[in-house]
Amino acid sequence: MGDKITGIFTPHVVPLDPEGRINEPELRRYIEWLIAMGVHGLYPNGSTGEFLRFTADERRRIVQIVCQQAAGRVPVLAGAAEANVRETLAACETYAGYGARAVAIVSPFYYKLSPESVFTYFREIALHSPIDVTLYNIPMFASPIDVPTIRRLAEFPRIVGIKDSSGDLVFMMRMIAAVRPGRPDFSFLTGWEAALVPMLLAGCDGGTNASSGVVPELTRQLYDLTRSGQIDEAMRIQYRLLELFDAMLFSADFPDGFRAAVDLRGFAMGPSRQPQSESQQVDRVALQKVLHCILADSGYTEYPAGGCPARTGNIDRDRITHLSAAVVEELRKRGLA
Amino acid sequence: MGDKITGIFTPHVVPLDPEGRINEPELRRYIEWLIAMGVHGLYPNGSTGEFLRFTADERRRIVQIVCQQAAGRVPVLAGAAEANVRETLAACETYAGYGARAVAIVSPFYYKLSPESVFTYFREIALHSPIDVTLYNIPMFASPIDVPTIRRLAEFPRIVGIKDSSGDLVFMMRMIAAVRPGRPDFSFLTGWEAALVPMLLAGCDGGTNASSGVVPELTRQLYDLTRSGQIDEAMRIQYRLLELFDAMLFSADFPDGFRAAVDLRGFAMGPSRQPQSESQQVDRVALQKVLHCILADSGYTEYPAGGCPARTGNIDRDRITHLSAAVVEELRKRGLA
Amino acid sequence: MGDKITGIFTPHVVPLDPEGRINEPELRRYIEWLIAMGVHGLYPNGSTGEFLRFTADERRRIVQIVCQQAAGRVPVLAGAAEANVRETLAACETYAGYGARAVAIVSPFYYKLSPESVFTYFREIALHSPIDVTLYNIPMFASPIDVPTIRRLAEFPRIVGIKDSSGDLVFMMRMIAAVRPGRPDFSFLTGWEAALVPMLLAGCDGGTNASSGVVPELTRQLYDLTRSGQIDEAMRIQYRLLELFDAMLFSADFPDGFRAAVDLRGFAMGPSRQPQSESQQVDRVALQKVLHCILADSGYTEYPAGGCPARTGNIDRDRITHLSAAVVEELRKRGLA
Amino acid sequence: MGDKITGIFTPHVVPLDPEGRINEPELRRYIEWLIAMGVHGLYPNGSTGEFLRFTADERRRIVQIVCQQAAGRVPVLAGAAEANVRETLAACETYAGYGARAVAIVSPFYYKLSPESVFTYFREIALHSPIDVTLYNIPMFASPIDVPTIRRLAEFPRIVGIKDSSGDLVFMMRMIAAVRPGRPDFSFLTGWEAALVPMLLAGCDGGTNASSGVVPELTRQLYDLTRSGQIDEAMRIQYRLLELFDAMLFSADFPDGFRAAVDLRGFAMGPSRQPQSESQQVDRVALQKVLHCILADSGYTEYPAGGCPARTGNIDRDRITHLSAAVVEELRKRGLA
Repeated sequence: MGDKITGIFTPHVVPLDPEGRINEPELRRYIEWLIAMGVHGLYPNGSTGEFLRFTADERRRIVQIVCQQAAGRVPVLAGAAEANVRETLAACETYAGYGARAVAIVSPFYYKLSPESVFTYFREIALHSPIDVTLYNIPMFASPIDVPTIRRLAEFPRIVGIKDSSGDLVFMMRMIAAVRPGRPDFSFLTGWEAALVPMLLAGCDGGTNASSGVVPELTRQLYDLTRSGQIDEAMRIQYRLLELFDAMLFSADFPDGFRAAVDLRGFAMGPSRQPQSESQQVDRVALQKVLHCILADSGYTEYPAGGCPARTGNIDRDRITHLSAAVVEELRKRGLA
Repeated sequence: MGDKITGIFTPHVVPLDPEGRINEPELRRYIEWLIAMGVHGLYPNGSTGEFLRFTADERRRIVQIVCQQAAGRVPVLAGAAEANVRETLAACETYAGYGARAVAIVSPFYYKLSPESVFTYFREIALHSPIDVTLYNIPMFASPIDVPTIRRLAEFPRIVGIKDSSGDLVFMMRMIAAVRPGRPDFSFLTGWEAALVPMLLAGCDGGTNASSGVVPELTRQLYDLTRSGQIDEAMRIQYRLLELFDAMLFSADFPDGFRAAVDLRGFAMGPSRQPQSESQQVDRVALQKVLHCILADSGYTEYPAGGCPARTGNIDRDRITHLSAAVVEELRKRGLA
Repeated sequence: MGDKITGIFTPHVVPLDPEGRINEPELRRYIEWLIAMGVHGLYPNGSTGEFLRFTADERRRIVQIVCQQAAGRVPVLAGAAEANVRETLAACETYAGYGARAVAIVSPFYYKLSPESVFTYFREIALHSPIDVTLYNIPMFASPIDVPTIRRLAEFPRIVGIKDSSGDLVFMMRMIAAVRPGRPDFSFLTGWEAALVPMLLAGCDGGTNASSGVVPELTRQLYDLTRSGQIDEAMRIQYRLLELFDAMLFSADFPDGFRAAVDLRGFAMGPSRQPQSESQQVDRVALQKVLHCILADSGYTEYPAGGCPARTGNIDRDRITHLSAAVVEELRKRGLA
Repeated sequence: MGDKITGIFTPHVVPLDPEGRINEPELRRYIEWLIAMGVHGLYPNGSTGEFLRFTADERRRIVQIVCQQAAGRVPVLAGAAEANVRETLAACETYAGYGARAVAIVSPFYYKLSPESVFTYFREIALHSPIDVTLYNIPMFASPIDVPTIRRLAEFPRIVGIKDSSGDLVFMMRMIAAVRPGRPDFSFLTGWEAALVPMLLAGCDGGTNASSGVVPELTRQLYDLTRSGQIDEAMRIQYRLLELFDAMLFSADFPDGFRAAVDLRGFAMGPSRQPQSESQQVDRVALQKVLHCILADSGYTEYPAGGCPARTGNIDRDRITHLSAAVVEELRKRGLA
């Protein structure tokens, strides 16, 4: 088995050409940049990477490109969920061959499975996978992995970690309390960078964070500051990252705000495969401004010509959204939410 | 365009051989039986058919077998959701070639999309599909289709109906009120046979009901009684169907209780592709008994030797489950539910 | 014990004077009108009656007025939930003295209690109440009463019925299947008039419906048509009632749309005790129009001068609300819903 | 106006005598002990204090006793929510007279109000209260207070803080980011002590924590360690507190586990007003053991004779609960959750 999985892994977006095909040169250029900017690892076929919108063949190709380009400089955590256990195990074998450090497998989705079924699914994979497995818990999208289940699964040596995207810090602490005493090598990664510093302080080994594909210098800095005990400075940056994270999260249906933001760093990501209406185009000018100011605040770039607004909690945006409250409620009651 | 879609369509389970491959002869034998028992149509690649646990190639093969076997005797509504719009449109084309009456396309799942994104997704399909499209709303598993969205989508002639599995009768009525005046040809199908009679009385044109793959004679009888105005008798059978439906729904993670029940009608369905622990094996003896008694009540078979229990709302089962309430609550609070 | 509780009970709004005090003369006049219009019973201190916004003394006074005014012509079902079991039992005693037919007691709210706690709470009341008790299940507001719990509670003779406001028809059927065989005298009342006809066809004995305080002639007609087997005509009116129900439900935070609608029938209900901003005033002109057209459709009044729009599912309103979808989603993600 | 509200406030349980009446001498003794153990403030009529299960007169009496006993040594934050705005303002006036530092007012509950209604409710109170007001957000029990609403309410000088019991760290950060720049005196208190250290590091001014009524020495130590920058030691104790917190939270319906735990510290709290079945009695022996070991770990007492188990995430308890997973799922599907 390999080393314990630690640090910030990037669940990267996949650049597409105008015909919607994987843009391989741009993907390679983007991976190269991420490594240069200091990410600790790469995570193709995550939720940010829209694994579900690619065919099985395309998912393989993406991992192959990423492993080739990384060339051992940083570890690769390859998303390997396929249609069923057999297909998933076949992908595990392929990704082992490509040199991935481990695979990440999301809990079964669409059907909402019971804890016993979630356990049985991962047990089957743990018993036959030729490569280390990290569990992927994302309860807003897939069957939840609860604390008793993670404990039972941690008895399989092949399972070496969990990525949790619930954003629930106390749930993370419950998992750590339940598993770490018996499995000190087990890795806890948070998928919720809005609370990255607190998660690291609570014992996480790292994160798989979409924001690290946009501002890898910032997430790395956050990680390093926290590890070296500079908590106040880390929290200051955490608040800035939250501002950017919210802008990317709320500007479009996930993960399109992240795709738009990577564009602003100089990569031609192209449109998502989920079609968008005109009204859905992310306001890149607004996003650009937030991104620019945050990077300037952290000394990574100059301030924009017009200056940056004082950081006051997005007052104007809030006021606007609040005006719509009555409409919102009506829609909510009609079954929207 | 074809006739309006009406009646009971069967979202059938797919028999698998011991190696987990599609058992084609048994699938053909099963389809033949369903047609003989009076189902109005067939619906391969539905949720009951575990479309997600097959590969793209397998999904095509399933539809091909079903269309061949149906041979025009009953219409086929083919589940055509694939990884993205392009792949889905390719499946639509293929299924048109196989002779399917229409395709059924589930709302985007995993990611929870906004109404605008759901609209844009289906609009793209409606504009390019060579075959009629029915929407598939199943909010416990996929992005919800709300009333304003269904109204907007009903403006596309290619979209000819919706299958709703929310089980919410009033939501169904709101959809009918919103769409029917402008699109009298638009078909409303309920996926919730526990309320089939009330749904038909409220204006539904039919249903796509997993139970019709187990007791096609009963769901057909229900449909015919309701259509001929014999409401009291229909409701009497509706309550029996509810008992069976609940037994299949709650005896295992969906759809495994339905798979086990089809077995009891004399078909070798084989195990699901979702692995199961020993404790998860459906209690087929208990399920058999419920099934046997319900069919006997309706005159389709003799009563079992030991007789049937009085219908008293599953008192014993309830009492047992209630004892676990404290445990349940504890688990629920820990994030299980 | 009294007769089985059947028919449509009105959970009426309480008229308030400009100082926010109970307007007793108007309340008496309103009760008189409701009886004249054919409601089968009265239900003071329900959710529509905003029981929670009155003091314990005011709640008693409301029941006293209603019982006096009813004077035995129709039965009174008095909402009796107070701060704890002791206070609730004291209210039961008082309401028995006033001549109420039974009390209705909502499941414990605020705290979300386990089924065992819900059972124990009602058991304590059942053992000591001097008056028949109906349970009140309203899971969007209070701890849910599940099927096993209703079964256990139905073993107490003092408990004679349940009012369910979940709106879930199949849940109602499960309760009926579980309880009716052993307690044919037990009463099932639906609080969801949007599905009143289907609920009655499924076996409900009646309803406690806020709409019956606005259009008592219509809910009575619905009830009578269904009981006499005129299902098609009943469903036609059901759809009209749904239109009005939605208008009242979605025009304001519940129950203010109902309060505004009673005003339009000629009663001075006054403002709610929940303060409202200017933007929250119900658009009474719009509500008036819907109400007027529905009553005209049913022959209860003349059509308005400007005529009524074709019934096409509120297209315009839908289109407007849909424009706000992006805003909605943003707010929802921020924790609004 | 008074000083900024900071530190750990205790939302204390109310001791009851065998007849269920307020046990005044024991309440005074308990308050005295809490002050001696170092809590920064007191919080009568919170959710832990079961404010809803007392009459309006009893709530006043509780605050009076607490204010008298505190006698200015620590500030009192008095829960003042009553049936409506008028009654609530009357309570505010009374509590100002008793010498409370501020009142805490929970967002409207039972009815789920829209953000606009929540705003209007608190605005009305802010404009007329003679005493400082802290908002109380507890979305699992009451209408949620969202970020735009807190921002709008922070414009009223009378509103001086918020207690948030959502347990969502990122939501807390969003509130702080939105309000603090314009209102540096505004106080953010977390009600979720399972994450007390991270919440303090993220900028909270303190907490109102039920656990501080059980182990006031531990919560105080946590607070002091965090404030003095000893994060590692603080996190070590945080994990212990989590173990105790979970034991109290999951051993009974909230807040009964906390009531049982205070008993174990030597106070006669008596039974709750919510009746309990035999099966619901908290296992005080088990709870005692956890409590004893945690206090011993922190040096506050000797270890128990039989020693303490290694801290391994409650493996045994987890294994037991997991066995019930199938039952749980069944119940959940039936509408329990």
